[in-house]
Amino acid sequence: MKQLNVGILGLGTVGGGTYAVLTRNAAEITRRTGCAINVVQVADRNIEQAKLMTGGKVDITNDAFAVVNNPNVDVVAELIGGYTLSKELVLKAIENGKHVVTANKALLALHGNEIFTAAQAKGVIVAYEAAVAGGIPIIKALREGLGANRIEWVAGIINGTTNFILTEMREKGLAFADVLGEAQRLGYAEADPTFDVEGIDAAHKLTIMSAIAFGMPMKFEQAYTEGITQLQQIDIKYAEELGYRVKLLGITKRTEAGVELRVHPTLIPEKRLVANVNGAMNAVVVKGDAVGPTLYYGAGAGAEPTASAVVADLMDVARLSDASVAQRVPYLGFQAGQVNDLPVLPISEINSAYYLRLRANDKPGVLADVTKILADRNISIDALLQKEPDDNETEADIVILTHITLEKNMNAGIAEIEALPAIVGNVIKIRMEELAK
Amino acid sequence: MKQLNVGILGLGTVGGGTYAVLTRNAAEITRRTGCAINVVQVADRNIEQAKLMTGGKVDITNDAFAVVNNPNVDVVAELIGGYTLSKELVLKAIENGKHVVTANKALLALHGNEIFTAAQAKGVIVAYEAAVAGGIPIIKALREGLGANRIEWVAGIINGTTNFILTEMREKGLAFADVLGEAQRLGYAEADPTFDVEGIDAAHKLTIMSAIAFGMPMKFEQAYTEGITQLQQIDIKYAEELGYRVKLLGITKRTEAGVELRVHPTLIPEKRLVANVNGAMNAVVVKGDAVGPTLYYGAGAGAEPTASAVVADLMDVARLSDASVAQRVPYLGFQAGQVNDLPVLPISEINSAYYLRLRANDKPGVLADVTKILADRNISIDALLQKEPDDNETEADIVILTHITLEKNMNAGIAEIEALPAIVGNVIKIRMEELAK
Repeated sequence: MKQLNVGILGLGTVGGGTYAVLTRNAAEITRRTGCAINVVQVADRNIEQAKLMTGGKVDITNDAFAVVNNPNVDVVAELIGGYTLSKELVLKAIENGKHVVTANKALLALHGNEIFTAAQAKGVIVAYEAAVAGGIPIIKALREGLGANRIEWVAGIINGTTNFILTEMREKGLAFADVLGEAQRLGYAEADPTFDVEGIDAAHKLTIMSAIAFGMPMKFEQAYTEGITQLQQIDIKYAEELGYRVKLLGITKRTEAGVELRVHPTLIPEKRLVANVNGAMNAVVVKGDAVGPTLYYGAGAGAEPTASAVVADLMDVARLSDASVAQRVPYLGFQAGQVNDLPVLPISEINSAYYLRLRANDKPGVLADVTKILADRNISIDALLQKEPDDNETEADIVILTHITLEKNMNAGIAEIEALPAIVGNVIKIRMEELAK
Repeated sequence: MKQLNVGILGLGTVGGGTYAVLTRNAAEITRRTGCAINVVQVADRNIEQAKLMTGGKVDITNDAFAVVNNPNVDVVAELIGGYTLSKELVLKAIENGKHVVTANKALLALHGNEIFTAAQAKGVIVAYEAAVAGGIPIIKALREGLGANRIEWVAGIINGTTNFILTEMREKGLAFADVLGEAQRLGYAEADPTFDVEGIDAAHKLTIMSAIAFGMPMKFEQAYTEGITQLQQIDIKYAEELGYRVKLLGITKRTEAGVELRVHPTLIPEKRLVANVNGAMNAVVVKGDAVGPTLYYGAGAGAEPTASAVVADLMDVARLSDASVAQRVPYLGFQAGQVNDLPVLPISEINSAYYLRLRANDKPGVLADVTKILADRNISIDALLQKEPDDNETEADIVILTHITLEKNMNAGIAEIEALPAIVGNVIKIRMEELAK
């Protein structure tokens, strides 16, 4: 029988899950691939624990370079994360003619272009289904399943930590800081949650999806990233009154002017399926010109869900390791010479609908002033919610949902609104997406 | 550049959509595949219309056998439907060494085993992404994306006509017959709707999914099929009061005793995403042992959504037409020698939770009698809804949700309940699924 020898770098959550799935489902995997996928070496800092996890059946080393240089290893599964050592290891594995499977979104978002160029030159596979949305086979859907389409946009809940926090904020009426503490206690958030709550992790994944949706290089440094740390409970509540949910979305769109590539809190109509994706779950909506909107939902993190994707990639490698380059799906889903260097639009140049919350002195004429500013800028109002002042207060909230306009036009309008004497403090602005067409 | 020459059988809805997508997205498709996919011949009964649709650029014939015998055709796209002529054509194409792409679920559910055996012998590809759930790439997800998993169950809304009807029944409070008429006027239902409303079309698709989920032959003739024609408005209403939606689900599960393969109206908790799939849309939930539950949503029919899947298959053929059999995904996702002849359980041997509605004379002791019958059969009650009799009536509805039990045990219990003197008419039984684990 055909054999595929795997070297695993890192036996942590994902590495441990990968080893467990490969072992438990070995018979089913061989029934499918006609190939035995053997873990022949594992690198981990904690040799004793790694020995325990693998039952002494696998060669364990604490030298990751021993694995990427091991002539008996056909494919390296890079599951250590980060983008310094992991980059060096992946490039070395490629140099040594080994195929690579990785779950590392940061590595690919930052150094994917260099890595794919190196892999192309050596004719090896670099597979990364686990890098986006964990166990959801979204890379395969974008590169293959929807390949007949001109992809128009992709929008996803692609960070479980922030979706868990937003779900708790809505369901329990709690503030961000309080839920973050709970999420940390439950293990849904890291001790330093910056990568998740500031949207950086989502931007890594979005960068990868934009590259394969449109056939363009990874452009992480040009992604707009806005997290959920400033999001207030009151806006979640007002959004709900208006029939919307607030989600941290990664959105990438192809427009005439360029590519939108942005992560930020977003109002979505509550009737959309994706608005009802709760807890730590992930979902990605893809709009193709032929197929229309499609949605992919599942666990975006965790040992075995992520391992499900890593092992699926190993199975693809098992089938295609000895195939020609033309017989494989190209790295970005587009042939090497056909990747277009599309410009990414700065956030001021994107088009969006908006949720605005203003605090105004309860005087006649305020609403007329505000709506005139918007009308002068051709910004149509879709809905308006004027709250009565609380007892003993003279200020009240006004919530406005606008139609689509250019972000810089919206920003200029907001600046004018904030300059009105009756307006108190800053205008809160949250972008809004219909996600229907 | 590499060329792939396609012959299309049938330029109806799907065939026309396929030609349109191949033409409109030709540049994007070649950017992806590095191959020009050319339609070189089309067979259709209506030659004049086919000439109009293809702008005179393609050889048109009314003899489908001319296409499958055309030495210049590399791959035949069978898009005529049915399972008599289409079977003959597909087998002839295979005999001639041509690859086949088909959207034909009936053909595969009934004759897939024979077709795959013939294709295996000739070493040609038979691809069928479009046969299940239209544009949703569920075949690729099951055979490849989730390949690392032992698939435990699959449950799907895989017929748009019935989902449209059920959505209208719920939202507008209408009876089945009234909505069917509306669906026929709108083109969502055929003049003879039997295939859709009796669950046969869903059973075709479910049969295909069970084969690739578990690695077993197509066993359509053993599928249990129950449509929505008998479903009453009142049960949709009671289900909603209890927090459930009624959907026509295709469900296949692997159990110790055998495979469950069944299509029937099903109560699903309203908080599940799949319970919120409305109108003519499709969705499939797949539970893998590693990944947990995942969901795939999109348009399950229509010209271009279905074409999206047909063309994706053609792109796979473009990559892999000259690959070895071992480099291709096997027909059922499992190697030819590894398909297991798993037994399909008769419906009496499946396990399910149940919704029961009984009509009872409003006398003391009825509920005690009913609950004793269930308790004696170890059927636990999860919820109970006892309705007050209407004015001037002496009969009232009792609704019971049970825990999971063997169907034949439930049926025996129902027979005993129906024999109680206070019970009026038959007990209505609808199966219930949690779809959570």
